[in-house]
Amino acid sequence: MNRADIEKPGELLYLCFHKDTIHMQEDTICAIGSPPGQGAIAIVRISGPASFKALGQICFPQKAGKKLEEVPPGKMVRVWIRDGEAMLDDGMVCRYVSPHSYTGEDMAEIFCHGSVYIQQRLLQLLIACGVRLARPGEFTQRAFLNGKMDLSQAEAVADLIASSSGASHRLAMHQMRGGFSSEIAVLRKEMLHFVSLLELELDFSEEDVQFADRSELTALLDQVIEKIRTMARSFASGQAIKNGIPVVIAGLPNVGKSTLLNTLLNEDRAIVSEIPGTTRDTIEDTLHIEGYLFRIIDTAGLRHSKDEIEAIGIRKTREKLRTARIVLLVIDLTEASSEIPGEIKALQLDTEQQIILVANKADKVPEEDLKKKVSELEQLNAGTVIPISAKKQNNLEMLRKELVNRAQSLTEGQDVLVTNLRHFEALDKARQALERAGTGLKEGIPTDLVAQDIREAMHYLAEITGEITTDEILGNIFKNFCIGK
Amino acid sequence: MNRADIEKPGELLYLCFHKDTIHMQEDTICAIGSPPGQGAIAIVRISGPASFKALGQICFPQKAGKKLEEVPPGKMVRVWIRDGEAMLDDGMVCRYVSPHSYTGEDMAEIFCHGSVYIQQRLLQLLIACGVRLARPGEFTQRAFLNGKMDLSQAEAVADLIASSSGASHRLAMHQMRGGFSSEIAVLRKEMLHFVSLLELELDFSEEDVQFADRSELTALLDQVIEKIRTMARSFASGQAIKNGIPVVIAGLPNVGKSTLLNTLLNEDRAIVSEIPGTTRDTIEDTLHIEGYLFRIIDTAGLRHSKDEIEAIGIRKTREKLRTARIVLLVIDLTEASSEIPGEIKALQLDTEQQIILVANKADKVPEEDLKKKVSELEQLNAGTVIPISAKKQNNLEMLRKELVNRAQSLTEGQDVLVTNLRHFEALDKARQALERAGTGLKEGIPTDLVAQDIREAMHYLAEITGEITTDEILGNIFKNFCIGK
Repeated sequence: MNRADIEKPGELLYLCFHKDTIHMQEDTICAIGSPPGQGAIAIVRISGPASFKALGQICFPQKAGKKLEEVPPGKMVRVWIRDGEAMLDDGMVCRYVSPHSYTGEDMAEIFCHGSVYIQQRLLQLLIACGVRLARPGEFTQRAFLNGKMDLSQAEAVADLIASSSGASHRLAMHQMRGGFSSEIAVLRKEMLHFVSLLELELDFSEEDVQFADRSELTALLDQVIEKIRTMARSFASGQAIKNGIPVVIAGLPNVGKSTLLNTLLNEDRAIVSEIPGTTRDTIEDTLHIEGYLFRIIDTAGLRHSKDEIEAIGIRKTREKLRTARIVLLVIDLTEASSEIPGEIKALQLDTEQQIILVANKADKVPEEDLKKKVSELEQLNAGTVIPISAKKQNNLEMLRKELVNRAQSLTEGQDVLVTNLRHFEALDKARQALERAGTGLKEGIPTDLVAQDIREAMHYLAEITGEITTDEILGNIFKNFCIGK
Repeated sequence: MNRADIEKPGELLYLCFHKDTIHMQEDTICAIGSPPGQGAIAIVRISGPASFKALGQICFPQKAGKKLEEVPPGKMVRVWIRDGEAMLDDGMVCRYVSPHSYTGEDMAEIFCHGSVYIQQRLLQLLIACGVRLARPGEFTQRAFLNGKMDLSQAEAVADLIASSSGASHRLAMHQMRGGFSSEIAVLRKEMLHFVSLLELELDFSEEDVQFADRSELTALLDQVIEKIRTMARSFASGQAIKNGIPVVIAGLPNVGKSTLLNTLLNEDRAIVSEIPGTTRDTIEDTLHIEGYLFRIIDTAGLRHSKDEIEAIGIRKTREKLRTARIVLLVIDLTEASSEIPGEIKALQLDTEQQIILVANKADKVPEEDLKKKVSELEQLNAGTVIPISAKKQNNLEMLRKELVNRAQSLTEGQDVLVTNLRHFEALDKARQALERAGTGLKEGIPTDLVAQDIREAMHYLAEITGEITTDEILGNIFKNFCIGK
């Protein structure tokens, strides 16, 4: 029984939509590739079959007698950029011949002086040559459609460009280099193996053969489900790393929350006064520490208030607390501390959310009492207590270090973090399909129906990397790109 | 008498400071060359002797076994950009070997993904390799110091990047390509000829020989002076083209000046009401028409007012009128028009300033009366009258065309416009020196003193193109450049 092609049934799926979506590549596109605005140098990119023709109508090598098409691909050549009879610019051009380009098509990059006028005029001239303006992300979309990268890698390009911290950059870079795709490929392979076993059984169903031990199959399935669950769970951390880790400063009124915000940000961001209830709106700003981006959110002090506006503020505090990954619970070290467990309970946090107890106004406590007070608090909180003085800026370094520790723990032990809602949703749907398959196995549902569920799960994984995709999915992904990429 | 080297005395001047100012080129500089901020692609430039060494510590060709130094200059190569053990980016690199580069030094350009994080990190990595951040304009300054361009061309690079209209772009482009420098060279040659004649005479002074006819010399000098005067006079037009042509909307209260501003700008920029004296502050905005940039300035209506604030507004109107190149005198076509000559006189314009009489509210005048009224006005104004309705947007196209006509007339018959205050001042000083020489000639001052004045004039011209320059001049010029150019 030669079944070397046993993996075929699952594999076939991956051919279905892909070819249909290659349909825009007859036209040639252009866009400004450099950041918008004025600068020393700007880049205008062209991609598509008419790239070189359009280029040849506008750019002319400065070296006498030299023709653009004689310059080897990938070689910079100094050109005059002409605007009809007039001279638009003295620039450089580089051509890339298909398939050896970013998009896989014939491409050119024009490097011009970064005046807004020249950039705009250059686009107008290209449009006059029949080139059209690229849609956001259209270069990368073409790169995907031409097999230069898979869909999750293409998405990582946008994340890479948007990354503003070392941590978010690392995640995007890993994904762009295919780290996430290969995790998906591993899962896919495991499912493929599984579905082939099932289908093999199916082929011989008349003979009533059970190739695989059912309990072994169930165990295998549970393993895959658990892997997907772990990946999906990493989405919250991935989001936090990508968009900034939400750190909510909470506590009773007048314990120094706004002073702490100002000190951390090193600017007078929030109004500070001696009057309890000064802060009403939640105030938010970002903070970079050691490559991590934190979104620090100052809130209204938690207390029962008859003041209507303050009450609204407290409601907002509750909302923000629900979004927090880390809560800095600020307490006044000069006051009684036995209330802490009640305060923590009142925050109504879930198990994923972390608390750091920030014991403020440490400068007002005599040196000899400080140690005792802190260790008392540590026992009450059963966790980290950081004594600081927000006003005098004492011991803030320790708080910053603790924030970085907590940030690092978000990524700990995880090779890949899911940072993209689309991926999370696909993983979640795959998990559901696999769980249905698991139930089916246990309940003795016919093998072909179980195989159907597994195939569905594989379909969702294929959506992540883009083996299966639709115009709608592509449209949604690339519309959030910047122009010129 | 062989005096083939007759042009030497003047020429010698041009060697004096130049060599001294080449002193910064031992260090290697880097900067972001693309516009600031986030985009698809960013450019980081490096220039100086250690460029390739630094590059080789950060960028590694992706092709296995390939080394950066093996890639021919001017050839794009795909690289991994490394941040120690981590991967910073997947980018491209191009090297340029001295003297075949923008600065004339060894140079490299790194093309990376345009995330702010990657750009900043890349600069940090280069700095860690001993490269320092470039000062504004330092690449172009090095290009100048290495003889790649003269000083007026270097200045034009900054103007080119800043140009936002077709007209200002044309001026900068002409100057960058050496159009202005060659005009200066012509003047310089004429002076050189003149000074050589004088010095020849000087050599034979003991024999009491007069080589040149004095009256011929004077005529020659006057010619040069007139040329310089014309160039200096073009400064006002050059400034207007470069920064926007100041167009002041003036007239009696309630004739529709603010409505005209809003209609021209196509937005509700100024508050409009039926109450005379609504506009108090001068309101200014820019308008592009057919490649020209206009600065349209709406002013308070001119009348005697007891309202203190309005009186201040009217004072401001007077100030703005003094800066105008074009005045749009708006009148109400439904009112008596015999006052126009008085109104024009009240504007107190000088001969360089142009008036366009804008006859507003044309929609309220019966069709059959309109022609007659306009021709009456034309006779009173002895110039262009444009009947419009600012409110109904009638005939605004004619007004726009007239503005373009006037803008074109600013540049008419002039090969070169002076756009730079430094050039204007140098030309003015040269003129003064030449005028002193002229007076000297007429008054029979000793020839060597006259020659001294001519030499001084040549010195000022040499400052324009940078044959003679000082650190202070260079510092002042390049500090206004953008970083990375």
